[in-house]
Amino acid sequence: MVNGIVLPIKKVFSLVDSKVSVEIKDEKRKLLGRLVAVDEYLNIHLDETTEYINNERGRTLGTVVIRGNNILTIAPSI
Amino acid sequence: MVNGIVLPIKKVFSLVDSKVSVEIKDEKRKLLGRLVAVDEYLNIHLDETTEYINNERGRTLGTVVIRGNNILTIAPSI
Amino acid sequence: MVNGIVLPIKKVFSLVDSKVSVEIKDEKRKLLGRLVAVDEYLNIHLDETTEYINNERGRTLGTVVIRGNNILTIAPSI
Amino acid sequence: MVNGIVLPIKKVFSLVDSKVSVEIKDEKRKLLGRLVAVDEYLNIHLDETTEYINNERGRTLGTVVIRGNNILTIAPSI
Amino acid sequence: MVNGIVLPIKKVFSLVDSKVSVEIKDEKRKLLGRLVAVDEYLNIHLDETTEYINNERGRTLGTVVIRGNNILTIAPSI
Amino acid sequence: MVNGIVLPIKKVFSLVDSKVSVEIKDEKRKLLGRLVAVDEYLNIHLDETTEYINNERGRTLGTVVIRGNNILTIAPSI
Repeated sequence: MVNGIVLPIKKVFSLVDSKVSVEIKDEKRKLLGRLVAVDEYLNIHLDETTEYINNERGRTLGTVVIRGNNILTIAPSI
Repeated sequence: MVNGIVLPIKKVFSLVDSKVSVEIKDEKRKLLGRLVAVDEYLNIHLDETTEYINNERGRTLGTVVIRGNNILTIAPSI
Repeated sequence: MVNGIVLPIKKVFSLVDSKVSVEIKDEKRKLLGRLVAVDEYLNIHLDETTEYINNERGRTLGTVVIRGNNILTIAPSI
Repeated sequence: MVNGIVLPIKKVFSLVDSKVSVEIKDEKRKLLGRLVAVDEYLNIHLDETTEYINNERGRTLGTVVIRGNNILTIAPSI
Repeated sequence: MVNGIVLPIKKVFSLVDSKVSVEIKDEKRKLLGRLVAVDEYLNIHLDETTEYINNERGRTLGTVVIRGNNILTIAPSI
Repeated sequence: MVNGIVLPIKKVFSLVDSKVSVEIKDEKRKLLGRLVAVDEYLNIHLDETTEYINNERGRTLGTVVIRGNNILTIAPSI
């Protein structure tokens, strides 16, 4: 459908097995963890997940599956 | 579509029959229960469900079907 | 697609013709009524509908069609 | 897919050409008008539309197309 | 799928090249502009766009693409 | 499907490799960056991204993938 363009989701696939930062929509919250899996809806499976609220470290969450539509952004964690 | 990657939803399928914690979007509320069924939209059927508001035990809800798009995260309940 | 698992929506189909409680997303509101019909998007057709706000009985609404994405939970009404 | 069940959307189709009340998600607002057309996403085309805010008559809007996902309920207008 | 009914989106197609008023969900904001293009998801391409907040003229925005799911209503601009 | 009309998404495709301004739904926040990729859901891959809150320059974000449904508008950055 979109020939010759690398899709945005390909960028996310390239992050599998590395640390990512997932920003939640409408909440001052981020989840940082290792990206285990992602699908075409941007549903995400993280492990070693830690919560950050207003950039302060929160709970340790371990394994979590996040519903794609409630994700605002996904970025490599630096 | 995403060969060689285990999809996030497979993680959730693996939790069928065990206790899960379902975090609701935009609400300080979690539903804990036994995962009876889940589909590709992450619609979820729980039984033996208990509500937690701000981590305090709330109502006992029994059987509940939750619409997938309003779920923020699903995790094994520890 | 998900062989051997009874889908969450089957639970809702089984409630057709009985009283259900439909919790609306982001509102302290429930609609109780007889479940006339439901489809794969969890769009719901109720009749004999009564509104409950903060668990207090509100308006009598009669026949109502509810858009599935704005539904948080569906449960048998006890 | 759902044999033998009359789908919720059939109820809405049956209201074409009559007056309906459309409740907007997360707003204390209703739009009342004549239902001209509806599709499978519950997108709705009304004419002779009047706005009601907290049950008080507001602006006269005439012809309006409403995006289905932002509709909470559709009901016959009595 | 819905034979004999003119779909709501046909109403919007008929407005291409004319001035439309696009009401944004959950914001007291409207975008007025010339409708350049629209698709089946009600994604909209406007040019000569002006913002109105609480019915007061705001910024001039020029060319803008609006994501359909965040649109509440589309109407001819009078 | 919509013959003879240039789809809204074509406008966004034409912006690939140039600077765009992405307005987030329900937040007083914009992300400005170079549009690397976009797909049919308006998922967007930006690099050289900078955040603007209430039109004031915020954090430098670098590479970011934004989920389409949480985007309100996309426009060329002037």
